Amino acid sequence: MRYLTQDGFNALFQISHRVDEDLGTDYHSRFLNYLHDAQERDLTVGIAMTDAKGDRRLRPSEQPNPDTYVHVVERRSGGVVISGTKAIVTSAPYVHELMVLPGRAMTEADRDFTIACAVPLDAPGLTIVARPAGRPGNASASFSGRYGQSTGVCRFENVFVPWERVFLCGEWKHAEFLTKSYATHHRHTCIAARAGFGDLLIGAGALMIEANGLSTDRNGHLRDTMVDLIKTVEGFYASGVAASVYGVVDPSGAIEPEPVYANIGKLLLATQIYDMHRLAHTVSGGLVATLPGPEEDHNPETSADLAAVLTARPDVPYAQRAAVAGFIEDLTVSESAGWYSTISLHGGGSPEAMKGEIHRRYPIAERKELVKRLVERGVAEVAGPSSAQPGQCCDTGCTVPETPEVIKRRPQD
Amino acid sequence: MRYLTQDGFNALFQISHRVDEDLGTDYHSRFLNYLHDAQERDLTVGIAMTDAKGDRRLRPSEQPNPDTYVHVVERRSGGVVISGTKAIVTSAPYVHELMVLPGRAMTEADRDFTIACAVPLDAPGLTIVARPAGRPGNASASFSGRYGQSTGVCRFENVFVPWERVFLCGEWKHAEFLTKSYATHHRHTCIAARAGFGDLLIGAGALMIEANGLSTDRNGHLRDTMVDLIKTVEGFYASGVAASVYGVVDPSGAIEPEPVYANIGKLLLATQIYDMHRLAHTVSGGLVATLPGPEEDHNPETSADLAAVLTARPDVPYAQRAAVAGFIEDLTVSESAGWYSTISLHGGGSPEAMKGEIHRRYPIAERKELVKRLVERGVAEVAGPSSAQPGQCCDTGCTVPETPEVIKRRPQD
Amino acid sequence: MRYLTQDGFNALFQISHRVDEDLGTDYHSRFLNYLHDAQERDLTVGIAMTDAKGDRRLRPSEQPNPDTYVHVVERRSGGVVISGTKAIVTSAPYVHELMVLPGRAMTEADRDFTIACAVPLDAPGLTIVARPAGRPGNASASFSGRYGQSTGVCRFENVFVPWERVFLCGEWKHAEFLTKSYATHHRHTCIAARAGFGDLLIGAGALMIEANGLSTDRNGHLRDTMVDLIKTVEGFYASGVAASVYGVVDPSGAIEPEPVYANIGKLLLATQIYDMHRLAHTVSGGLVATLPGPEEDHNPETSADLAAVLTARPDVPYAQRAAVAGFIEDLTVSESAGWYSTISLHGGGSPEAMKGEIHRRYPIAERKELVKRLVERGVAEVAGPSSAQPGQCCDTGCTVPETPEVIKRRPQD
Amino acid sequence: MRYLTQDGFNALFQISHRVDEDLGTDYHSRFLNYLHDAQERDLTVGIAMTDAKGDRRLRPSEQPNPDTYVHVVERRSGGVVISGTKAIVTSAPYVHELMVLPGRAMTEADRDFTIACAVPLDAPGLTIVARPAGRPGNASASFSGRYGQSTGVCRFENVFVPWERVFLCGEWKHAEFLTKSYATHHRHTCIAARAGFGDLLIGAGALMIEANGLSTDRNGHLRDTMVDLIKTVEGFYASGVAASVYGVVDPSGAIEPEPVYANIGKLLLATQIYDMHRLAHTVSGGLVATLPGPEEDHNPETSADLAAVLTARPDVPYAQRAAVAGFIEDLTVSESAGWYSTISLHGGGSPEAMKGEIHRRYPIAERKELVKRLVERGVAEVAGPSSAQPGQCCDTGCTVPETPEVIKRRPQD
Repeated sequence: MRYLTQDGFNALFQISHRVDEDLGTDYHSRFLNYLHDAQERDLTVGIAMTDAKGDRRLRPSEQPNPDTYVHVVERRSGGVVISGTKAIVTSAPYVHELMVLPGRAMTEADRDFTIACAVPLDAPGLTIVARPAGRPGNASASFSGRYGQSTGVCRFENVFVPWERVFLCGEWKHAEFLTKSYATHHRHTCIAARAGFGDLLIGAGALMIEANGLSTDRNGHLRDTMVDLIKTVEGFYASGVAASVYGVVDPSGAIEPEPVYANIGKLLLATQIYDMHRLAHTVSGGLVATLPGPEEDHNPETSADLAAVLTARPDVPYAQRAAVAGFIEDLTVSESAGWYSTISLHGGGSPEAMKGEIHRRYPIAERKELVKRLVERGVAEVAGPSSAQPGQCCDTGCTVPETPEVIKRRPQD
Repeated sequence: MRYLTQDGFNALFQISHRVDEDLGTDYHSRFLNYLHDAQERDLTVGIAMTDAKGDRRLRPSEQPNPDTYVHVVERRSGGVVISGTKAIVTSAPYVHELMVLPGRAMTEADRDFTIACAVPLDAPGLTIVARPAGRPGNASASFSGRYGQSTGVCRFENVFVPWERVFLCGEWKHAEFLTKSYATHHRHTCIAARAGFGDLLIGAGALMIEANGLSTDRNGHLRDTMVDLIKTVEGFYASGVAASVYGVVDPSGAIEPEPVYANIGKLLLATQIYDMHRLAHTVSGGLVATLPGPEEDHNPETSADLAAVLTARPDVPYAQRAAVAGFIEDLTVSESAGWYSTISLHGGGSPEAMKGEIHRRYPIAERKELVKRLVERGVAEVAGPSSAQPGQCCDTGCTVPETPEVIKRRPQD
Repeated sequence: MRYLTQDGFNALFQISHRVDEDLGTDYHSRFLNYLHDAQERDLTVGIAMTDAKGDRRLRPSEQPNPDTYVHVVERRSGGVVISGTKAIVTSAPYVHELMVLPGRAMTEADRDFTIACAVPLDAPGLTIVARPAGRPGNASASFSGRYGQSTGVCRFENVFVPWERVFLCGEWKHAEFLTKSYATHHRHTCIAARAGFGDLLIGAGALMIEANGLSTDRNGHLRDTMVDLIKTVEGFYASGVAASVYGVVDPSGAIEPEPVYANIGKLLLATQIYDMHRLAHTVSGGLVATLPGPEEDHNPETSADLAAVLTARPDVPYAQRAAVAGFIEDLTVSESAGWYSTISLHGGGSPEAMKGEIHRRYPIAERKELVKRLVERGVAEVAGPSSAQPGQCCDTGCTVPETPEVIKRRPQD
Repeated sequence: MRYLTQDGFNALFQISHRVDEDLGTDYHSRFLNYLHDAQERDLTVGIAMTDAKGDRRLRPSEQPNPDTYVHVVERRSGGVVISGTKAIVTSAPYVHELMVLPGRAMTEADRDFTIACAVPLDAPGLTIVARPAGRPGNASASFSGRYGQSTGVCRFENVFVPWERVFLCGEWKHAEFLTKSYATHHRHTCIAARAGFGDLLIGAGALMIEANGLSTDRNGHLRDTMVDLIKTVEGFYASGVAASVYGVVDPSGAIEPEPVYANIGKLLLATQIYDMHRLAHTVSGGLVATLPGPEEDHNPETSADLAAVLTARPDVPYAQRAAVAGFIEDLTVSESAGWYSTISLHGGGSPEAMKGEIHRRYPIAERKELVKRLVERGVAEVAGPSSAQPGQCCDTGCTVPETPEVIKRRPQD
């Protein structure tokens, strides 16, 4: 089973256990059966979570067009029938199955919109509208031609799903927990994914500096920019490491990343992906956006000449310089690059969502307590007579002050 | 005559006058003749300045392959013959003429590389290799399909240029002035150009917020992001205004923008174009990169459904929402967007070039003088006995201190 | 008359004219009389605007303790009697008079809180509680010992003000205009004031680099930091220039700075003053916070030794190095420095206030119109058949597209 | 033994083992004896590392005044005699002993300047010149009055140190390792220290919002600012966590923090401490710098009035509001605040030093290898004929591409 499903499957592992505990259902074993089958058949499963949403001021059950959210239209003995639209589904056109999950907290009126289930891609009634992944037919797509992604709109029209593939159906009180848990897992994985993207920029930047005939030793500003790029990438990756280190064991036995760090890491990468482009362009120079396209490499009228005059140092042939420039272009200039930026910003929740979670989960009350203790002690002491003289080291003289109670620095405590 | 040439023509106006004064040549009237002719015939003239450069550690005359820089290969009675390569020429494929300018300061050995001249695009021996402008054949290119730009590599092979089109030829000492003057004019115009780009993002962002069914009143973070975008755009535009206000009259009669502000404005936009993308994506939401392409709008199997579920508020039809999203995509996600970013960063000089000019032109010596006067006065006074008591307003009591000499705040003074 | 009053006097000049036009009062001539008298007697007048505010969720007239705002308690034939508290009054203890102005928009119920009037500092019933300006008795205060400021809490208890000194009394509808106008003038002047502070940092930074035995030529990162400092200072100053250039003539004849640029400039300086400290510390090195105090310079046991070992280059004596370090400390490390930062952030309105004004005054509607025209034209064209071929420069072929209507780039249009 | 010595003692633990291995000395056991004695006697030991440096362009042995660096002036049978100056020694006046360490890499000529040894504070010939810690006699110093720090200049004049307290003496080749190892340990500990400072700002900010009668629920910009503060503090703390997680065991058995993350964390906090002040001031409001001082609380003429009008909500008495405001002032406005900022920026090495280490220690070569493999494979494939059609998902069709070799994401690999 491939990685796409890791975050969603973790969240389902947790929620199915939780609902069983709460309501006496048997979702957990049902989900485990599905999981083991998917692992054995080595399925790639995509997550279909973000609904089309319709009028943003209205809840799912209030929408004039109910198909703006996926929902149950019929319950049969063998399973459920669902309809509606999931609007942003990464990898939709080339996975084996879609895992439908509720995309938000629900109220009782939204009961029918609380549905989690697995749907094979060839299920009758499922239509996917998507752009092709990467930059099809474009020889410049040296990276995205192989690793490009596509995002699809998935339209469900009376799709039948048998009960053994249904993992939540109407338990509206639990929808919020599922979305929060999923978000934490997903944001955590985003951090690693984008750090990998950063690794590519760092490596390509270093190669480009060489191919341009420059060096980080002679050109201080290039060294500075490379360090800035490294600082950015490893800086947010470190939040992912901290989220792992402080991960907490859920009652189901799953380990959930520490949410404050997972959200901070995602928030940092979401906004700093743009800085990463800037830094990559700073080290690469303008050539990455102005080189003739690769088709020109095969134009007998010009290719030899271009190669001759655009070689920047004798030991790096033009073809290599152009290849690295093309690689950076693919990562930071092309529409694949733009897609990556946007999806980094909004995928797994927009910055506002991360900020909300950070505020909700951070132990601000503990920090207030710490300061309160310090201030109150201070107020008491300052009010009394002080023997301190100018030049004396502190107000209390030579008695060692008692150590303040240490607040253990784990955000989630 | 179209705007592309404004910066180069201003610089030529200045340098031709300057060289005439210095060396008794007649470049200025020659240039004016060309200028008036170009104006009458309404020519669009592109600037061909950045050479291919070859080995960056070597000067033009030291290059193993001299064609890495444009240079004079023969002087005839009727004109000169030039060869070499200009590597990044904006608009090269669709201008009437190219204005060749030296791309750096020169030494005496680089005499033959000091050449400024006008070359019509159909001159024998001139080959242009360029990608098409915008995103040809792409229905999504709602802006760049009309206003897209292309950058070309221009290969000159024994191109003959008659003397009346030659405006500098061997006067190597003046090459640096020309490049600095050109850079100042060019950076100044970049500011306005990119502020116009910012206007489009501001307008499109505001439309997109509406089309998404959101509002800056109800959604404080969207208001905040819009203000951040406005602050960024108008913030660097203001440097352009200041460069105009403090512009200086050159001996030729041309007005040169104040160089510190012109360079600061360009430096700000060069690095902040990436922030502008981030801010535009923050207000637009992820839809701009995930909507099905416009060809899907004509797919009878899906178009009606998509329109129905992807309408976010009743009074803004899906077609309009999609059109605005497509516009933002074109400006900030597509390869045209990537091209704009890179050219904003490196066009008219990379950030290091701007920083160098700012450091060179800023009156740091005056600032040091100001502080020196203040510090010395302070040192003298502090050394003497002070009558100040705790609680008294200042050391010197009630005598009004003499006003320090005011430094007039114009960077170039 | 000294500069402290410039912004408040400008605003009063405008509002008195405006109220006269609206209500037939004679405030304008009354104000002019006061103005001319103040000019003749060369009075320094401070602005008392920010009230103590009390419970922030309640309007002035709803406060349990009415003295949280200054208000009229009695109207007599000869004048008014006022009570209440202005909480943050710059320079309060050492001006000749205070100009009381309403600090917010008012409703009809707040009529008594709408009062503008001039009060001499020795008026019976006026108590000022303030810290001393600068760092009294501190020999290190090489700048703030002379130019330090103080902020006072001003308590009015039944202070009588004759009518000829009253410039607004109950005209609650006009309070908002006065506060907005005042804010624009004040923010504009803040820009210049903080740019002057920046000049000091630039000069002191350059002197410190020298005194440390370093140089911007040999130490690239110091040059880079100096340029960053210059870019920051001149970057926000340029917004002040733009606000002047696009200033608008008020019906009263006063010129009001263009509000978008005035607010952007203030917003930039408010947040970037902290960056300025960081940059100044980066160039100065840690010595500025770790040098022994100046009293040690007169300690015969240590002063000669310190001078010998802490000289960093033979031609700059230790006393000069220490003096410049002390100057930077005074500006960026001392409590005067902290006071300047805080007052830069919150003085003349907190960042949120500037953001609100920028959003309110920026011509977003025009930007939307511009994009709408472009998108609609594009949509129309894209819908029709296109003759564009891959490789062709643009969709419309060789016909010159009509120039889009140019939006004149003045924010306030 | 108190924490001040942790970084220096770790580094000495490593270097003494390393020198013994290299040169057969017995420093390690000598150091362990000292360590155990210091632990038993519960000594606080300060690190004296940064020399006065003199002319920065000259090495220690080239200085006209050798006392600009601490050095050995005589070797006796019982020990060494040292002279010279350590310029920035945190806590110098109130520790039991100083641990002298070499402050830079040495050459053979600098042999006498390579000295590590422990000196009790009352050793004859040792003079310390320092400002008092905190803000002595200042009732406002609610935090720094108790936890303030002082930095001293330490002058050694023929100070005798017995051999059992000498841990490096002339082994100049090892000086660089010691400084690098010390720097890594020290930067790592700085991260935790400044995160603790951040905790105080977070707690105090939250209390101040309440005391001002505001709330993060009603005032979105305050919530946003709090989240920004949390993101900053936990963001750099996470680098410290990652440095611990990936710490490496030294041959001596000591664990050294992973150096890239330790340097990134220190670099982030060094520059972001200024942002933390800005964010704290944004949530606190201007009151923290404008409140009357605490001595006013005891002024019977004004205290009751001030308390009445400056209470912002009925349930938080003025005394508490003022206490929290004073606490924030102490941390972010006072000269203790300025001292903390400067020491955060430069303590344990200035930003340039961290950047140098990050560049030196980061596995850039591995990142280049990764990209090279991807680019070369791409070039090979792109050169051949492609069967991809427009609209097909990728160039290679339906065969699963082989997984690229995963680079394990640990910077130091």
